[in-house]
Amino acid sequence: MRALVYHNHTLIFEKNYQLPVLRSGEALIRVLLAGICNTDLEITRGYLDFQGVLGHEFVGVVEEVYEAPGASLIGQRVVGEINAACHRSDCFYCRQNMPTHCPNRTTLGIVNRDGAFAEYLQLPLENLHIVPENVSNEEAVFVEPLAANFEILEQVHLKPTDSVIILGDGKMGQLAAQVLALSGCELIMLGKHEEKLALAAKRGIQTRLLANEQEVALENRKRVDVVVECTGSTKGLEMALQLVRPRGTIVLKSTVADQSSLHLAPIVIDEIRVQGSRCGPFPPALRALSQKLVDVRPLISARYSLDDGLDAFRHAGEKGVLKVLLQM
Amino acid sequence: MRALVYHNHTLIFEKNYQLPVLRSGEALIRVLLAGICNTDLEITRGYLDFQGVLGHEFVGVVEEVYEAPGASLIGQRVVGEINAACHRSDCFYCRQNMPTHCPNRTTLGIVNRDGAFAEYLQLPLENLHIVPENVSNEEAVFVEPLAANFEILEQVHLKPTDSVIILGDGKMGQLAAQVLALSGCELIMLGKHEEKLALAAKRGIQTRLLANEQEVALENRKRVDVVVECTGSTKGLEMALQLVRPRGTIVLKSTVADQSSLHLAPIVIDEIRVQGSRCGPFPPALRALSQKLVDVRPLISARYSLDDGLDAFRHAGEKGVLKVLLQM
Repeated sequence: MRALVYHNHTLIFEKNYQLPVLRSGEALIRVLLAGICNTDLEITRGYLDFQGVLGHEFVGVVEEVYEAPGASLIGQRVVGEINAACHRSDCFYCRQNMPTHCPNRTTLGIVNRDGAFAEYLQLPLENLHIVPENVSNEEAVFVEPLAANFEILEQVHLKPTDSVIILGDGKMGQLAAQVLALSGCELIMLGKHEEKLALAAKRGIQTRLLANEQEVALENRKRVDVVVECTGSTKGLEMALQLVRPRGTIVLKSTVADQSSLHLAPIVIDEIRVQGSRCGPFPPALRALSQKLVDVRPLISARYSLDDGLDAFRHAGEKGVLKVLLQM
Repeated sequence: MRALVYHNHTLIFEKNYQLPVLRSGEALIRVLLAGICNTDLEITRGYLDFQGVLGHEFVGVVEEVYEAPGASLIGQRVVGEINAACHRSDCFYCRQNMPTHCPNRTTLGIVNRDGAFAEYLQLPLENLHIVPENVSNEEAVFVEPLAANFEILEQVHLKPTDSVIILGDGKMGQLAAQVLALSGCELIMLGKHEEKLALAAKRGIQTRLLANEQEVALENRKRVDVVVECTGSTKGLEMALQLVRPRGTIVLKSTVADQSSLHLAPIVIDEIRVQGSRCGPFPPALRALSQKLVDVRPLISARYSLDDGLDAFRHAGEKGVLKVLLQM
């Protein structure tokens, strides 16, 4: 099959990559559409040392299942959770119902499991969620990153009267803003790109242009209940600390790969909660799309054939670009 | 009056320090007993740049009040919350009922307010709490640091089935262990001092001796629901990150004054909550003492007259020493 493979520190397009060999408990899925995520770009810069087919945001159709009980899924359009847990009876994390934290897990296109930038992929049946009819492929391909933002609401009780600042106007910031706005909270997005801020503003979300790294909306200094860090930069965290109120919460939504220097005394003195946040629940993301509570389509910057995957990656890495999709 | 004063980077014993001049809304308190805290020691090493009478842990008797409505307090034995808020109608933090985070606050013996290592101090009436008859002075002097540990239970829902590790066997660790054990949780104290661990063990608290900085109880690696960092060292935070489970909580109970380097990626990947924690509510601390749910008396290492305050400070700064009290 055709696939975009990261191998020996190089991203290559392969015409004859081996088809997945279906394993017990798993389904073979024909990929329809996949999205390029910042994590994919980071992997091609050496993050996590992954080798294999990249990609973890997808929508596809179930073509085959290993065991009969999954047969009803055949032909269904699905999205898939990306972490495949071990479910062994002696696994502390699986026993506690934390499959996304299972230390033996494989992760689609990220850890020990070929990903979605190919004609076919396989995932455990339990990872799959049927896509409602009124959700298009272009919408469904956003379920994974959308779910990651519903994770914030799993972790933090966001009140309708809370003041919230989203730091960053990129893909993650845009989705975070749409999801958190559903709570009724008073939300402002801070970013550096007028055209990206305009996307959020179109939805009635308040935005503020940051002219330079140091600038902070001073009127909000130490007043904000919840700050969501979506810039992926150390500077973003510093700004979050300047904005959050005593007893407030900072949500870290991006893995800052470099060793960030964080002065801890202010966290204790102001009694800040710093909350790391990663993968999230798919069902609320599918409901939000089906009920048209969020609109992800304006975030699509470009669409490429899988055959032009290398061009798609170059495009996705350029400044100002939001979601780049790959069509199989 | 006699007082221990930190002035021009030197701790001095003054025989004729000026008496407090009573202000509106405040009470004059004759100090009976006061405790030396690590913060006091840190101030004498330059922390917070404070000048004046040190000390914020005390029990005393109300001698005088500025206005008649407080007259019923005269003659009462009291402890006092240390932060005096501004309560101005335009103060964002006072309006939100966060007096301990008021940016205009003074703090007893720490910020712009003379402290408790003197014959007299003054505090707002609203800061005072009457000490129940069955709580001795030796117990009451621990209310402030005990309240700081009840703050953890205000911030984190500690479940009776949670596994908890307290890092550090010093004053803060000892009080944290006694308070958190009240939740019914499965608690282990990790420390480096056999004689201090023995104090906790006497109360039936599980303890573990750490032979060197690097050593971690490996069987607990990434399994602990809540880790409370009471060592005040960067190494303590690193160890907390090794112990806490995915989706678990690290409580930072000590201001680490140095710029600590914290790698943020593990916090996001494991979805850790890092919770800063400082001053806490006095009433639960007084109830716990009155109901004999905690026993602070074994933590008293020595008792000095205020006149020998300089010796008391030297003693309090020595290794292996827990609480040193000053008697007026």
